Amino acid sequence: MDSADLRWWGWGLLGRSEPLDGRPLLGATLRAWLELPAEAFEQELTPVDLEQIDLRPSRLDDPMLTSLRKTLGDGAVRADAAARVTHSYGKSYGDLVRLRAGCVPRPPDAVVTPVDEGQVVALLAWCAERDVAVVPFGGGTGLEGGLQVPEGENPGVVLDLSRLDRLLSLDVTSRTATVQAGARGAELEGALNEKGYTLGQLPQSSEFSSVGGWIATGAAGHGTPGHLSVEAKTEALRVVTPIGMVDAERTVSGGGRAGLLGLLFGSEGAFGVIAEAVLAVRPLPQESDVRALAFAGLEDGLAALRELMQSERLDPTVAALWDGAAVAAWEASLPARAGAGRLADGLVARRRERGGYPAESERVLLLLGFEGDSGAVAAQWREALAVCGRHKSTTLGNGVARAWERERYSWPYLRDTLVGRGVMVDAVGASADWSALPAVRDALVDALRGAVRTGKGGPGFVHTWFTHSGPQGSGVYATFFGRRATEDVEASVAQWQAVRDAGLEAVLEAGGRLCLGCGAGCSRSRWLERQADPTGLKALRALKAALDPTGVMNPGVLPA
Amino acid sequence: MDSADLRWWGWGLLGRSEPLDGRPLLGATLRAWLELPAEAFEQELTPVDLEQIDLRPSRLDDPMLTSLRKTLGDGAVRADAAARVTHSYGKSYGDLVRLRAGCVPRPPDAVVTPVDEGQVVALLAWCAERDVAVVPFGGGTGLEGGLQVPEGENPGVVLDLSRLDRLLSLDVTSRTATVQAGARGAELEGALNEKGYTLGQLPQSSEFSSVGGWIATGAAGHGTPGHLSVEAKTEALRVVTPIGMVDAERTVSGGGRAGLLGLLFGSEGAFGVIAEAVLAVRPLPQESDVRALAFAGLEDGLAALRELMQSERLDPTVAALWDGAAVAAWEASLPARAGAGRLADGLVARRRERGGYPAESERVLLLLGFEGDSGAVAAQWREALAVCGRHKSTTLGNGVARAWERERYSWPYLRDTLVGRGVMVDAVGASADWSALPAVRDALVDALRGAVRTGKGGPGFVHTWFTHSGPQGSGVYATFFGRRATEDVEASVAQWQAVRDAGLEAVLEAGGRLCLGCGAGCSRSRWLERQADPTGLKALRALKAALDPTGVMNPGVLPA
Repeated sequence: MDSADLRWWGWGLLGRSEPLDGRPLLGATLRAWLELPAEAFEQELTPVDLEQIDLRPSRLDDPMLTSLRKTLGDGAVRADAAARVTHSYGKSYGDLVRLRAGCVPRPPDAVVTPVDEGQVVALLAWCAERDVAVVPFGGGTGLEGGLQVPEGENPGVVLDLSRLDRLLSLDVTSRTATVQAGARGAELEGALNEKGYTLGQLPQSSEFSSVGGWIATGAAGHGTPGHLSVEAKTEALRVVTPIGMVDAERTVSGGGRAGLLGLLFGSEGAFGVIAEAVLAVRPLPQESDVRALAFAGLEDGLAALRELMQSERLDPTVAALWDGAAVAAWEASLPARAGAGRLADGLVARRRERGGYPAESERVLLLLGFEGDSGAVAAQWREALAVCGRHKSTTLGNGVARAWERERYSWPYLRDTLVGRGVMVDAVGASADWSALPAVRDALVDALRGAVRTGKGGPGFVHTWFTHSGPQGSGVYATFFGRRATEDVEASVAQWQAVRDAGLEAVLEAGGRLCLGCGAGCSRSRWLERQADPTGLKALRALKAALDPTGVMNPGVLPA
Repeated sequence: MDSADLRWWGWGLLGRSEPLDGRPLLGATLRAWLELPAEAFEQELTPVDLEQIDLRPSRLDDPMLTSLRKTLGDGAVRADAAARVTHSYGKSYGDLVRLRAGCVPRPPDAVVTPVDEGQVVALLAWCAERDVAVVPFGGGTGLEGGLQVPEGENPGVVLDLSRLDRLLSLDVTSRTATVQAGARGAELEGALNEKGYTLGQLPQSSEFSSVGGWIATGAAGHGTPGHLSVEAKTEALRVVTPIGMVDAERTVSGGGRAGLLGLLFGSEGAFGVIAEAVLAVRPLPQESDVRALAFAGLEDGLAALRELMQSERLDPTVAALWDGAAVAAWEASLPARAGAGRLADGLVARRRERGGYPAESERVLLLLGFEGDSGAVAAQWREALAVCGRHKSTTLGNGVARAWERERYSWPYLRDTLVGRGVMVDAVGASADWSALPAVRDALVDALRGAVRTGKGGPGFVHTWFTHSGPQGSGVYATFFGRRATEDVEASVAQWQAVRDAGLEAVLEAGGRLCLGCGAGCSRSRWLERQADPTGLKALRALKAALDPTGVMNPGVLPA
């Protein structure tokens, strides 16, 4: 993928966008829900031109750049404005607000794109000697501020892993694939599919996000049950640290080669650069059958989801429960086009008739999928329908599910459209055991709604969904929408941060856990401090000091 | 359990032993296989009397002991000979050889048995201030030398966790049990069963071994598939370190509360004392059906085991494959008693007719079990039998499996009997992915046999079994038997160590991994050094230095 084809100020490919035109309900519904002023919403604000951005000069002077190019080869080092701007941020709401306005106060001083592990080793040595910060960059889709060069005097380079993207080997006996960490999700899945295998890891970002990025951020895809997370699928990692290579392996019993494997999930590059991963794969299933079921309310839906995840007869490959507000938001966002599925079209029509803010009693929706040979899929569906039936489900068939599968990659594009029309939108994630889950969800919703209002974001709209579930608990995610309160860039970022903070605080107070890794990005690093016990954090800092004695690895993602 | 009821020089309860008398084939078979001299084998050597052991005086002088008693209460501190001897070792072959001879050069200087977490905290503070080593002791069944006070000048105390043994709570909604880490396996399982739940973790040691011990040693039970290991069942751990508490949690996604959870499996107390664990439990199944199947040879058996573990339709709760030699050894060991099951009796009779060393072409045996409601169990068995049938299996029904279930806890007692008759016996474990597994197993067997011979242990007898299997690979364990070459205690220990070392070396050379944790006991700590990359080890040492700045936590288990 050529980075010239990518939208530097937003999501994805330049050639694709998701305007409001094709989605008849979305604009009107959001305007009503969020009380958006017509003037702000009517016309999408155009981002500044890249050329207009007033970029501070690279703090790597010519002799430094020459030395870097000598070390890594000319082709691997760029210091032009385009490279620096496109590697300045991830894709959080705050990142988008700043980028669109051309506000790039901390661009990397160079962008380095190694072609092999040896170049990564050489780069880290070069940087460690010169106190130059290294920010690893996979697909650039991070949402937690982990892709920014830190504040301060020292220069920083972005280490773009996009050329370390090969599927190195596939062991069909052991069902493992060895891949370079820069491999992008969709491309890797395609390469595996050609050989008859699947990783089955398709987050919304997967066209762009990378294996190393998933691991470094502890990410998981919407609808993925916990036991199919990338963490569960990682058999071994090869990590370049400033003091040498770490090979961390899972072993069948006994805690891993050196016990370090678990520390790397969510580590955001604080300890080193994930260069290679051995991942569990499985043969392409004969059949994959995702369907949607409706429940009368959240209580029923959660009870069914829990029972499904605790059943020893079931092994779903997709499981996600949406609350009533999430169903309403999704229905409102659907395009009016042929082939959207009769059921989905029906939902759109019904929503159009009713309009307005969805009631809490709104029916909730469960997306559930099984895969395997057709006999196994049918047997699991029989059992699953029996479980759901006990909780008064209505089967919607797979029309809705097909619409979901078709639409799931549109959302990040659509978000760009909304951000351009003065909508503040983001999501926060948490997890809890099943006992605490309902209270954590309610607290999260209340806190986010309250904070949107307090921050002059209007009435706000918050919806939640449950995914990454397992027998002991589940993830819960909340998306919040509000009005952008001001045209000022930093004030808008602060407005958004305040809402997120309120949500995260509420999660901890209600006995939930934040979905954080060791590093968890700069925007969450102080939350790591809140959540982690101080003793554990001391241990992590000692570990970092040992692996990265000069502190050049993505400074700031592990709280100091 | 009162420690006065336990056999200080060997395994288990004083009131129970496993003499050779009731096992008509065992003596003759072993004499033949190992070329044991009749005079050594005829009569079991009696261990010395505990009173005769010449124990060095406690290096904690009276003021120190008084201070310790003041800190923890009189009842929690013992320095008498019985307490010190019974807490001097684990239960490895080397430990048994030394104990039976009354060779206890490094007894603990005191044994501390706290009744609550506060006392553990107080003890660690007391020890850290005075450079007194702390050796955590769960059930005392460890096999890797992790329970010994280190050499050197500094005093050392054993921290016996047996009174921290309560089931604190059971959350039936989230299916988790919160337990104190000193809880012994069988007792805990009984307490859970009473409430209708099971942990399903029953290693051969489970009458005595503790939850904390399983975690600290990275142990797993014979026949347990990898995804049912104690590691997979641990949701959270609470650990007392010399600088404070660490709460390490698994989260649904995002790498754990502080990412430290994975480091604690196999850590052997190097970082702190595991005080509490939150474990996943499940409702007692309606049915549990374990059966044995025979295959014509190891290749067929391994192919079937792999296919079973890779099948997405199957979720076995028991899976262990024994090679031909393991089947022969097991058959030779069976007691001749009524109710042993017709099939098992038949095997014994056939073995009696044949005798002699089993051929490599000997048929192999798979123990396989499923549990759940009867419909699910039946469906899984149908599928499993189809898989095994493709590899030319013969179904032995559940007579053999019942004999296995009845006999599995006898082995450690029987080992005592053999050790008393001049038999060297132990096992080493490894893991490998499915591709490398056959070569790792063969290399392990060859190396152990060769080393028994070289060490003047006679022709030796080695058998292997495969357990802790998963979709990507399996554990492989080898038991070796030989003649004890000398009456000298330390020379006998060296003979045994040399055989183990040869086995472990062969595993690494063949591309396998040793089943080691972070600490992995003193007897394996130098192997950790071999296996772990030096960079990873540096990181672990830094972590230890942060959590245990004075280095009092079980010194020696993490290589310095």
